[in-house]
Amino acid sequence: FLFWQQPYFTMNAPCPLDNVRIVLSHTSHPGNIGAAARAMKTMGLSALYLINPRLFPDREADARAVRARDILDKIKVCTELDEALENTVMVAAMTARPRDLSHDVYNARQGARELLRYARQQPVALLFGAETSGLTTAEVNKCQIIIHIPANPEFSSLNLASAVQVMAYELRMALIENEEPASPIGSPVSFNDLELFYAHLEQAMIASDFLDPQKPKLLMQRIRRLFARARLEKEEVQILRGILTALGKRW
Amino acid sequence: FLFWQQPYFTMNAPCPLDNVRIVLSHTSHPGNIGAAARAMKTMGLSALYLINPRLFPDREADARAVRARDILDKIKVCTELDEALENTVMVAAMTARPRDLSHDVYNARQGARELLRYARQQPVALLFGAETSGLTTAEVNKCQIIIHIPANPEFSSLNLASAVQVMAYELRMALIENEEPASPIGSPVSFNDLELFYAHLEQAMIASDFLDPQKPKLLMQRIRRLFARARLEKEEVQILRGILTALGKRW
Repeated sequence: FLFWQQPYFTMNAPCPLDNVRIVLSHTSHPGNIGAAARAMKTMGLSALYLINPRLFPDREADARAVRARDILDKIKVCTELDEALENTVMVAAMTARPRDLSHDVYNARQGARELLRYARQQPVALLFGAETSGLTTAEVNKCQIIIHIPANPEFSSLNLASAVQVMAYELRMALIENEEPASPIGSPVSFNDLELFYAHLEQAMIASDFLDPQKPKLLMQRIRRLFARARLEKEEVQILRGILTALGKRW
Repeated sequence: FLFWQQPYFTMNAPCPLDNVRIVLSHTSHPGNIGAAARAMKTMGLSALYLINPRLFPDREADARAVRARDILDKIKVCTELDEALENTVMVAAMTARPRDLSHDVYNARQGARELLRYARQQPVALLFGAETSGLTTAEVNKCQIIIHIPANPEFSSLNLASAVQVMAYELRMALIENEEPASPIGSPVSFNDLELFYAHLEQAMIASDFLDPQKPKLLMQRIRRLFARARLEKEEVQILRGILTALGKRW
């Protein structure tokens, strides 16, 4: 039955879904971790990262994972967000609440397509906050785009694993839908190089008295959002850092 | 923030989602019933029917429903499938396995659209089988269409509540398609101010010997493209120019 068949990828052409990391920050309930693993596996995702889970490993996680225990076995537990995002070229923040308006905001479907566009080449991450409190502003600031799952405005709190399921499903749909080829991507900058650029810029702003480290206000946050929207390429970051170095060399 | 708002329906124009029944046949785990109720409510569905559940009501169902207890309170428990399907004009069988080919088969997205088309007028139902065994042939035979959720061929067993979540999500997406307003726009910078910024930047690059005006190459062009993608806002341009002024003030 042809219509049941799923896209097939040979060993030589790895599946873009292998490039998608699901990153769960400060998860409270281990059951949700197991259920998230199961949700991922049903859609062909496998890279699960945890940042400071309250409780893991745990029996409840194993129980809810059912036959997706292999994903739990190779889970990466991190103490810092930066560790989980290392070498990614696109990070999406999952959030149900309106945030600042300076990030590009996608719904689940558009966001999955956008992530997959990058995942065809290099690692990307989808970042989920803690069950009750969601993502912090500092966490959102490390992301390039925001994704929200359209929901009932009177009760929009999807269970964490359900949110992972919806996004994993949309990623799979994005993979199999017959689309016009998406616009090409240059060489996106890696998370690490992007952070080095921000550090360089911040240091230059402080050295030139533009930024008072005692009263930083929201300046770096605004700047991060501005450049997040630009989806900087590797070479562009080199140019920007070159400018900073040139401008700063007499300090 | 208007763009977060969801379609609004007055009392006089009931929401088509009110016409969609979720029917769970022979559910084994009461937790799944509660989680299904929560999944439904997040997407604005409310009519839940059970056919011979193994255990209901149950504490585990209440716990997993969280704030969707109101859906459990008005649940309809039936002993016969026909009772649950009464007065519907369209019934879809959810199945992960290939069945007979005499039914029309839709994927989750197409199936949700098809169901909603009918639900705009009269009641429809989405029928889910027991967790392990799925729907019986007799049950599928009471349906007009089959819906399958595209999944990993090596592990296609979605949790029951996750399958409800995906379908509820697709029903909501079908409802809001073409209705979702585009992302909001902040205070975009004017052409004139943007050009002043580029001139400022170029002058700073020349003054710091980063750019040789005799051999400008494509540097400004690259920079323009980078900032074009960011869709700069008025205030952001002020910040960038502030940085340039601060960095340049000793030249």
